[in-house]
Amino acid sequence: MQWVRHFSEGSASERDLLGGKGANLAEMTRLGLPVPPGFTITTDAFRALRANGNQVPDSLWEETTAALTSVEQTLDREFGNPHCPLLLSVRSGARDSMPGMMDTILNVGLDDFTVEGLAALSGERFAWDSYRRLIQMYGRVVLEVEGELFEEILTKARKDAGVSHDHELDAEQLKEVAERFKSTIEEHGAHFPHDPWDQLRGAVMAVFRSWDSPRAIAYRRSHDFPEDAGTAVNIQAMVFGNIGAGCASGVAFTRNPNSGAAGLFGEFMINAQGEDVVSGVRTPLSTDEMIDNSLFSQAHAELLDVARKLEQHFTDMQDLEFTVERGKLWMLQTRTGKRTASAAVRIAVEMASEGLISRETGVRRVRPEDIESLLHPQIDRTQEVLVLAKGMPASPGAASGKAVFTPERAKEMGEAGEAVILVRNETAAEDFPGMERSKGILTARGGMTSHAAVVARGMGLPAVTGCSGIEVDARHGRFWAGDEVVFEGDIITIDGTTGQVIRGEAAMTKPGLGDEARVLLSWADGIRQLGVRTNADTPADAARAVEFGAEGIGLCRTEHMFFAPGRIEAMRRMILAQSDPERIRALADLQVFQTADFAGIFRAMASRPVTIRLLDPPLHEFLPTTEAEVHELAVEMGIDVSAIAHIVESMREVNPMLGLRGVRLGMTFPDVTRMQARAIFAASLTVSSEGVEVHPEIMIPLVSTPEELREQRRLIEEVATDVFSRAGRTVPFQIGTMIEVPRAALVADKIAGFADFFSLGTNDLTQMTFGLSRDDAARFLPSYVEQGVLADDPFQTLDQEGVGQLVQLATERGRLTKPDLSVGVCGEHGGDPASIHFCHHAGLDYVSCSPFRVPVARLAAAHATLEARDCPPTAD
Amino acid sequence: MQWVRHFSEGSASERDLLGGKGANLAEMTRLGLPVPPGFTITTDAFRALRANGNQVPDSLWEETTAALTSVEQTLDREFGNPHCPLLLSVRSGARDSMPGMMDTILNVGLDDFTVEGLAALSGERFAWDSYRRLIQMYGRVVLEVEGELFEEILTKARKDAGVSHDHELDAEQLKEVAERFKSTIEEHGAHFPHDPWDQLRGAVMAVFRSWDSPRAIAYRRSHDFPEDAGTAVNIQAMVFGNIGAGCASGVAFTRNPNSGAAGLFGEFMINAQGEDVVSGVRTPLSTDEMIDNSLFSQAHAELLDVARKLEQHFTDMQDLEFTVERGKLWMLQTRTGKRTASAAVRIAVEMASEGLISRETGVRRVRPEDIESLLHPQIDRTQEVLVLAKGMPASPGAASGKAVFTPERAKEMGEAGEAVILVRNETAAEDFPGMERSKGILTARGGMTSHAAVVARGMGLPAVTGCSGIEVDARHGRFWAGDEVVFEGDIITIDGTTGQVIRGEAAMTKPGLGDEARVLLSWADGIRQLGVRTNADTPADAARAVEFGAEGIGLCRTEHMFFAPGRIEAMRRMILAQSDPERIRALADLQVFQTADFAGIFRAMASRPVTIRLLDPPLHEFLPTTEAEVHELAVEMGIDVSAIAHIVESMREVNPMLGLRGVRLGMTFPDVTRMQARAIFAASLTVSSEGVEVHPEIMIPLVSTPEELREQRRLIEEVATDVFSRAGRTVPFQIGTMIEVPRAALVADKIAGFADFFSLGTNDLTQMTFGLSRDDAARFLPSYVEQGVLADDPFQTLDQEGVGQLVQLATERGRLTKPDLSVGVCGEHGGDPASIHFCHHAGLDYVSCSPFRVPVARLAAAHATLEARDCPPTAD
Repeated sequence: MQWVRHFSEGSASERDLLGGKGANLAEMTRLGLPVPPGFTITTDAFRALRANGNQVPDSLWEETTAALTSVEQTLDREFGNPHCPLLLSVRSGARDSMPGMMDTILNVGLDDFTVEGLAALSGERFAWDSYRRLIQMYGRVVLEVEGELFEEILTKARKDAGVSHDHELDAEQLKEVAERFKSTIEEHGAHFPHDPWDQLRGAVMAVFRSWDSPRAIAYRRSHDFPEDAGTAVNIQAMVFGNIGAGCASGVAFTRNPNSGAAGLFGEFMINAQGEDVVSGVRTPLSTDEMIDNSLFSQAHAELLDVARKLEQHFTDMQDLEFTVERGKLWMLQTRTGKRTASAAVRIAVEMASEGLISRETGVRRVRPEDIESLLHPQIDRTQEVLVLAKGMPASPGAASGKAVFTPERAKEMGEAGEAVILVRNETAAEDFPGMERSKGILTARGGMTSHAAVVARGMGLPAVTGCSGIEVDARHGRFWAGDEVVFEGDIITIDGTTGQVIRGEAAMTKPGLGDEARVLLSWADGIRQLGVRTNADTPADAARAVEFGAEGIGLCRTEHMFFAPGRIEAMRRMILAQSDPERIRALADLQVFQTADFAGIFRAMASRPVTIRLLDPPLHEFLPTTEAEVHELAVEMGIDVSAIAHIVESMREVNPMLGLRGVRLGMTFPDVTRMQARAIFAASLTVSSEGVEVHPEIMIPLVSTPEELREQRRLIEEVATDVFSRAGRTVPFQIGTMIEVPRAALVADKIAGFADFFSLGTNDLTQMTFGLSRDDAARFLPSYVEQGVLADDPFQTLDQEGVGQLVQLATERGRLTKPDLSVGVCGEHGGDPASIHFCHHAGLDYVSCSPFRVPVARLAAAHATLEARDCPPTAD
Repeated sequence: MQWVRHFSEGSASERDLLGGKGANLAEMTRLGLPVPPGFTITTDAFRALRANGNQVPDSLWEETTAALTSVEQTLDREFGNPHCPLLLSVRSGARDSMPGMMDTILNVGLDDFTVEGLAALSGERFAWDSYRRLIQMYGRVVLEVEGELFEEILTKARKDAGVSHDHELDAEQLKEVAERFKSTIEEHGAHFPHDPWDQLRGAVMAVFRSWDSPRAIAYRRSHDFPEDAGTAVNIQAMVFGNIGAGCASGVAFTRNPNSGAAGLFGEFMINAQGEDVVSGVRTPLSTDEMIDNSLFSQAHAELLDVARKLEQHFTDMQDLEFTVERGKLWMLQTRTGKRTASAAVRIAVEMASEGLISRETGVRRVRPEDIESLLHPQIDRTQEVLVLAKGMPASPGAASGKAVFTPERAKEMGEAGEAVILVRNETAAEDFPGMERSKGILTARGGMTSHAAVVARGMGLPAVTGCSGIEVDARHGRFWAGDEVVFEGDIITIDGTTGQVIRGEAAMTKPGLGDEARVLLSWADGIRQLGVRTNADTPADAARAVEFGAEGIGLCRTEHMFFAPGRIEAMRRMILAQSDPERIRALADLQVFQTADFAGIFRAMASRPVTIRLLDPPLHEFLPTTEAEVHELAVEMGIDVSAIAHIVESMREVNPMLGLRGVRLGMTFPDVTRMQARAIFAASLTVSSEGVEVHPEIMIPLVSTPEELREQRRLIEEVATDVFSRAGRTVPFQIGTMIEVPRAALVADKIAGFADFFSLGTNDLTQMTFGLSRDDAARFLPSYVEQGVLADDPFQTLDQEGVGQLVQLATERGRLTKPDLSVGVCGEHGGDPASIHFCHHAGLDYVSCSPFRVPVARLAAAHATLEARDCPPTAD
């Protein structure tokens, strides 16, 4: 076994053995970059030590001595030799980065003799400052003397000297400090070793020991890092950015990590060590300022060259640490740099355009959540805010506005041009006009896929739901958050990305899907196999979705069209009609509206398929709820208030989700199906006569038996025959069904006999498969996810283990009957990356999601294809 | 092809060819019984005729002539010979009995000459009466002259003669009638044939033609009889029960069809034809009166002998028709006799005891619905009643009582000893105390498995649910049924067997599971493989179920225990507790009640397994709903009314069935699980110390993930360890789960890892698999069944096509993990015969049903075993 590896012997691929830092130092050395010489004690040594009762392997120190000799020879210095002292840094370095969790000791090799030698070479003050740093670090880390004691000595020294910062202490004062440090260590029964070799061995053992520090253990647990991987130890010659003129330390990114712009982006600090740059005592300068500084211009040119080489070598943006010692550049670290979402996109696109990476790699480099975060306004995290409460991050983005507590008020103020946030216990279909006029939605109940959440995401409105920390008192127009009260008209900000509810107007950053994102997504389109459609109910939504790249509408909900003023009245007349002529008149009115709506959508989608779901919600959702509304309606219809109240009451349902809705409406009121079919065909004829191709796909919701679909299909085909024969023209159309009831999935082979397509309504399918209403889940679902009873909220990420079985069953059985059956997903999951991966593997044809998630879905679908290429599925 | 078969050539096994009547006449002939000679034109002839454009096959009339010659020789009479005329009956006879749907012509062979011969032989009046009957029947049936015309002639004749019945007309008057009949036929362009052979051919063709009469077609459709089976034609020598002394006609059963008692049970009428006995013009006499009548005693002895022979031969009770012509017995028909439920049971048991049939056959002969109908009071169908409306037959049996409209009133009046019928729009858990005191339940909403229906069946209370024809106005204490109003206190009767709601107190017949039924069910127990348990929540229910043969409790719902006064308060304090000590106190109170309840049930079930389901319903079901109750509770708990109102409001759910209930309660409030487990173990220890074996099986409801069961199991096992270690004793126990959520069935292999048993909750499983709330289904489910969209109400009969897949999946996957896993069904389907057959075939261990359905389930389970023996399942 070889326990020690020179940097020149390793490479970046040996992270397991050398740790991340060691491997990258080795790689830079191998590339011929200016890395201070050194070596790594491997993780094998760590594991051997642990296996051997914390005894170091026999040959470890011998190998260390040999390796150190080689470093001495390279630098022409000698460890422990006062005339040409070699100082060392001893740093931890595990495979997975655990920033700040383990220990580091710098300046190892200084003692009462070598400090004098260093003073002679590099100045008194520098030497004694370095020495006191070693004693302090060593005392605390290796000898485990309370760090506070050293700070007290320093504080006293500053006070005695009448200065306020350590760097203002002079050599004599620092020497005094060093002496006091040593006495303190002795007083605590420990001893600062004067033999540099003892120092080195003690430092190495301390680094190994720090693997087991409570904070390191906690960090590994929270990041799921393996407990037995262990750390390597990097021993490297010290270089100094703080020995006067021509010295500096700095950090740099090979591209701008905020904007993604090409070109070095860094900061440096003259006459400082790395820790000074990070601590923020002084303000660092831009690395650009090195260019015109004669002491650093050469180092800057070298740094540019190194940066270019490293980026080329690692083919990704790098985060660098460097030191300039008397004009000479030394590289201390390189790693892949973190970046913002927009930087990620720009870097990926530009690197691919430069030919540095393939377009495929560019696509891989951007996460779906990056694309998503480009699209929603964000609260500026640098500003202080007063957080009132925290709920679920139901629809991303942030919004500020006046709190209002009824949809009516939201509509009224919204139409008057005011920014309002609608605050409710929960929302329902009839709140839509008010929601539409709000800038954001806040609900005390409901989860990530409650009505409020779904509608908000559909409209791209920020929403926070299930915010159990607030108590809504709509009657008095106020809500409490603990002791805080927010009255109607008070300004609040909600952050649908984090779930925060904030008092006042928080500062925002601007969103946007820029040119680079468009390019990247076009590459993703070239890769993905899964189609991406959108859920859109209006021409405006449809147009926006097309702009975001939607290839069709996968779900057009027709009921939202009925809630608009002027329409809801006709809908109510239809529901409450006391005679056939009355009902027929109301239906005729609705048909006019629907025909116009569909025509608008067909035009917006120009030649793309449009899947229209027939009326789905329980009819009572359309009925008036307030006494005033009931009264108004009674007058309008010329019937008794009590008669209306009676009908409203008789239509109340115990479990509306499982009641008279979906296809059950069409079966019970076939005239409604006929009216909708007539409107679809009439609109199709109109728009196709304008020269626009139309592809209506009529979708029957909530089917649980093949017979329901057969009956509805028959009705619709009769209407088609009638409308087309009157017009003397036809348009192609399809009739299909939602698969959203478990039974439909189970008998999908039989249902497919009457279906041209399936659309998996995974929202309802999840609700029914779990026996869990999303509107009622807020009281326990979050704790289920927290306790690990559920890995994810099944309304956000498709439950592959359970619901996924039904998705696969429906697809397989449907295609058993019709091998070419088109199968899509139109639930909320259509916009969730993990669920999109599942849909890809399940062999679906497309996903459909809200317009704002279309770009996310395009990218996630491409990732699914790439992942499948990497790891082809194995046969069971 | 042979188109004609002598009776002596056929047998009972040739129903397809000879029709039911012809086959049985042949069988009797073959047995040497006194059957008037004759022959059958086969259904082959019918089909040949149809295939040949209604042309008779060439040889048909030749064969008929030959067969008739043989009849003439046997009787020494001649067809068409006035000196010794042979008269014939020509009757239809299809494979499947279609009573009264096709035609018959009697006395064929009479004309103006033979009638004189007959008069000489048998008297003037008889001859002319026979002749006018032939002309009338022939005219109507064969010649298709309006029957009304003949009735008018008869009416006029009676009027002219000054008599009121046809049999009071004398020979001369009948001769006159016959002449007028013939004139009428002539006037309508038809002709009554005088050639007997023409008569015969016309009659045969008319019988064939009657297969296509509209009423025959309708009957076949409604009974699913094949359209192309066709009818045979039976041609038989006439015998006469109406030619004076020693003549009679009668019908008899070989055993009493009402009571099942052994011994001939029949009626006869002297000097009458069969049609006179049926028409009820005169009152017939008991066949017992033949014994002491010298003219009939010999025939009676013969009849007894024939009856004994036929019963022995067919090994079932027979329904006979006979004629005595001048002292000689002639048998005209035999068939298996219809019987009441109690007769079916007694006959089966007695025949098996006599050795006539095997016990197995006895068990097969009784239908599960027969057993069921023994247990519930029945409305006497012979009495006139005023039916107000008709709903669903939700819980069988009938009950009368005063209509009341609130559970409070029901309880109050019920406790005062009054019979009340609780009338509600629908019922909820809190109505239980009122329901318990009622004689029956009537609801305007809800289906066969609504809360009202389930609870009623559990208690053996009659119930009519989903009665949409009534409008309940509880506030004013009344309901409407059309224009009828029923006020509180008015007596009504409900029939849970038919769904009828009747004004006033209808007469009832008495129920009872007699000794014979007990014997029969013990035989069934020896055959069946499926276990039968009961759903019982109280010691009284448990005791009743044991009496009915339950082998254990498959479902003990613990929540009903909480609704009793003195308990609901503790439950509410637990739910509303503002502090831990308060909650702990409330739980301690509840634990005392539960321990006592469980001990009572364990004693009642003595050594049989008892499956106890932990708390299932949403907690808000326990909270007060009226202002008065809220106020009372606030005073009791010393908190603000508005605070309680606020909590009640915050616990309201949109879809309670899919909300915070079942295991979700146990996960959210683990102390409730602990309390219930503690009560179960404490009760187990107490009862086992009394020397009674206890087998508690703790069941966790509504599980959808394995993790839920794992967590609850851990809690319960901790409690067990604690309770048992304190007591220094243990009792064996099991922990299992309901499979009632589709996801649970899908991941049953994983759930089985933590389950000792599965109980399939097919009620909820059906609701969730269909996405259909049983409480909301009443508005469309009946029309679905009517339209054939669904074959059956899936809440009554398990939906094998859809839900059945999940039942099988859960069983198979559960046993994949644990091959010996016990799997039962505890939904409403556990008492439904068709569903029980499915459970048998799915390999379940037991079904569990309400106490009153236990006997039904025992019999149905035996039938399932027998059916599987007859038709072993084939491999797919």
